[in-house]
Amino acid sequence: MKATILAVGTELLFGQVINTNAAYLSSRLQLLGVDVLYHFTVGDNPARAASALERSIAETDLVITSGGLGPTQDDLTKEIIAEVMGVNLVLDEGVLSSIEEFFREIGREMTANNRKQALIPEGASVFYNDVGTAPGFMIEKNGKTVVALPGPPRELHHLFQKDVLPYLERRTDGVIRYKLLRFYGIGESSLESKLTPLIDGQTDPTIATYAKEGECAVRIASKRKTGEEALAVVDAMEERVKNLVGEFLYSDDDRELSAVVAAKLMARNLTIASAESCTGGLFADSLIAVPGVSKSFDRGYITYSNESKIDLLGVPKDIIETFGAVSEETAVAMAEGARERAGTDIGVSVTGVAGSDGGSAEKPVGVAWICVCGANGRKTKKLVTRDRGRNLNRHIFMLEMMNQVNRYLSSQI
Amino acid sequence: MKATILAVGTELLFGQVINTNAAYLSSRLQLLGVDVLYHFTVGDNPARAASALERSIAETDLVITSGGLGPTQDDLTKEIIAEVMGVNLVLDEGVLSSIEEFFREIGREMTANNRKQALIPEGASVFYNDVGTAPGFMIEKNGKTVVALPGPPRELHHLFQKDVLPYLERRTDGVIRYKLLRFYGIGESSLESKLTPLIDGQTDPTIATYAKEGECAVRIASKRKTGEEALAVVDAMEERVKNLVGEFLYSDDDRELSAVVAAKLMARNLTIASAESCTGGLFADSLIAVPGVSKSFDRGYITYSNESKIDLLGVPKDIIETFGAVSEETAVAMAEGARERAGTDIGVSVTGVAGSDGGSAEKPVGVAWICVCGANGRKTKKLVTRDRGRNLNRHIFMLEMMNQVNRYLSSQI
Repeated sequence: MKATILAVGTELLFGQVINTNAAYLSSRLQLLGVDVLYHFTVGDNPARAASALERSIAETDLVITSGGLGPTQDDLTKEIIAEVMGVNLVLDEGVLSSIEEFFREIGREMTANNRKQALIPEGASVFYNDVGTAPGFMIEKNGKTVVALPGPPRELHHLFQKDVLPYLERRTDGVIRYKLLRFYGIGESSLESKLTPLIDGQTDPTIATYAKEGECAVRIASKRKTGEEALAVVDAMEERVKNLVGEFLYSDDDRELSAVVAAKLMARNLTIASAESCTGGLFADSLIAVPGVSKSFDRGYITYSNESKIDLLGVPKDIIETFGAVSEETAVAMAEGARERAGTDIGVSVTGVAGSDGGSAEKPVGVAWICVCGANGRKTKKLVTRDRGRNLNRHIFMLEMMNQVNRYLSSQI
Repeated sequence: MKATILAVGTELLFGQVINTNAAYLSSRLQLLGVDVLYHFTVGDNPARAASALERSIAETDLVITSGGLGPTQDDLTKEIIAEVMGVNLVLDEGVLSSIEEFFREIGREMTANNRKQALIPEGASVFYNDVGTAPGFMIEKNGKTVVALPGPPRELHHLFQKDVLPYLERRTDGVIRYKLLRFYGIGESSLESKLTPLIDGQTDPTIATYAKEGECAVRIASKRKTGEEALAVVDAMEERVKNLVGEFLYSDDDRELSAVVAAKLMARNLTIASAESCTGGLFADSLIAVPGVSKSFDRGYITYSNESKIDLLGVPKDIIETFGAVSEETAVAMAEGARERAGTDIGVSVTGVAGSDGGSAEKPVGVAWICVCGANGRKTKKLVTRDRGRNLNRHIFMLEMMNQVNRYLSSQI
């Protein structure tokens, strides 16, 4: 099956909004074996929108539109689809009552133009929208399918998962299952070359690598008659991937490294305290982003200056004077100070040169020392990265702290 | 002038990469008064790419392509443009020697396929690429202009600013200057309605409002014969905007609120310490993201639990027991504790309910207390926001801390 993704909205052509829906839909369609041939964006202009839809229908079997389903004058996607498909718009009582219900719940009066959202092309299947007011729908005619989804990403994702995916799985005669494996400590090109024996000539399951700042990911996907079969194929390939690069794997369900660390701490009833210099709270912030983590993380120290390392963590002044603030010795004293003063099971610290200034020949921008300590002793790590700008450097220092804590926890079973 | 933005790249159709270039180019073209009618994305398929380019040239005066200029087989944009424009590709010696130079500098051998990057459609103006290897170019024929830019956003932005913008300014007969004013504490719809007298019927300068999570912005742009004239028009309009909504303005040069606060602290040689509960280091992290801030910020306290507020900040236990951890009294004790223990000019604190759990009827998710204290006394603020999910709530709490510090500093002149 070949597809076009057609976005409707002048805000996209003004550059006010980045079209993330096209990438979202494309990656999902690719998993289903649907070839996306075009992304197309038009404004709220009826003639151009209709012409773009006609072209898309002529050249591909499936057109998914995003946007233009709202209650206002310039929302014209439904009208265009009805016109091009040669049907009328009819009032859908189910949609109308769900919109009325929505307004009752939020305690606001429903304005007349909201009735417009209950108009649906005759013969279309309606996708009820539980997370907004604009419903989506699907209409088939002469072997062509047009799917209309609302523009807000949260609503689009919801309706795609709930209604479009099951429909496409039926149409494409198979069920897709996939896993996203996340890796730290290996670059994408190195990951790809290690997996070459698995990737080459493989059509199902498919294996694709992705790069993200400081880490990378592998997606394994399979399409089979049933979900169980597809998952079994994915699981088997995951084992083969693990045999090659398992040492770098930290999550097989697309969770962030911080979420993995938080879950391990909570599961083992372990507590941790952080002492951060250049990352300035980024480590603590990433942990606290995980709901429920208060059980394991209740305090952190941001010690940017030498004085604050001495005052808040009890780092001996002569350690800083002898070895420097960015040194293994200072990192150890920081982590041990944090652990001792906070009375936690684990302490973690970082001290480094994030830039843009402050680098020297001996300790250039991009260098950091990290220490993790606990009942099982301590581990230190010197991180040497190329300078990627202050804030990306800081992000990478934080990821390495998470990685060190994760490895410390893994070695502690 | 009417324009199409045509992206070339299978990675976009696979959903591996989000097309941010289209929004970037669109927003710049809009400033120049160029109407963008279409965004179009095709894969590395010669026939479809050529057909898309032909259509784009037929329907619009200006086509800007992004991507497909690299050295590999599937980089086909130049070939397609030469074919559609009916010219040959010729070797550009200037480009060739700059690519050779690039490889000498990074100390790697130049492979043969890199010579391909020095091929340029005959008669095109070359845009030399100082930040990568693939040059861009522009070719005009029969009143139509095709501009080709490399896909990596950093290179595309660079060549657009350096070569495309001056060309378009000449073509559109004028020079654009704009300012981005940023506001906190007023919603976009309210901002827009207050500015209606200025926006309505205005063609130059243009005034556009934008919403961002927790804040919003106004862009004032003018196109005149000279940059000085345009800037004078923008400045005059800025004054009128300030007269209406100046109390909410925090930056007139697109700087973040945290950068504004850091700059004010540094300029006045003031020091600050933070005490954060639910934001977990986000405030400190945002300040430390600003280079040079160590002069004003050297330590922060992350006190997530009641015990840590007592231990690290000296919050009296009976205050927490009497008023609760999320209360004005606790916020005051936290800010004063941070200021006193850190020995800084200013202390700032936050304690709130970020969710997803922990809310109650009395203190629902989205409620936070903030306190700023210093030599000029103290200011407290109860923030009541609707629940937008744990991490967005935390971001908004952090912004409000910045806002309170900013206002405290402004009242302290």
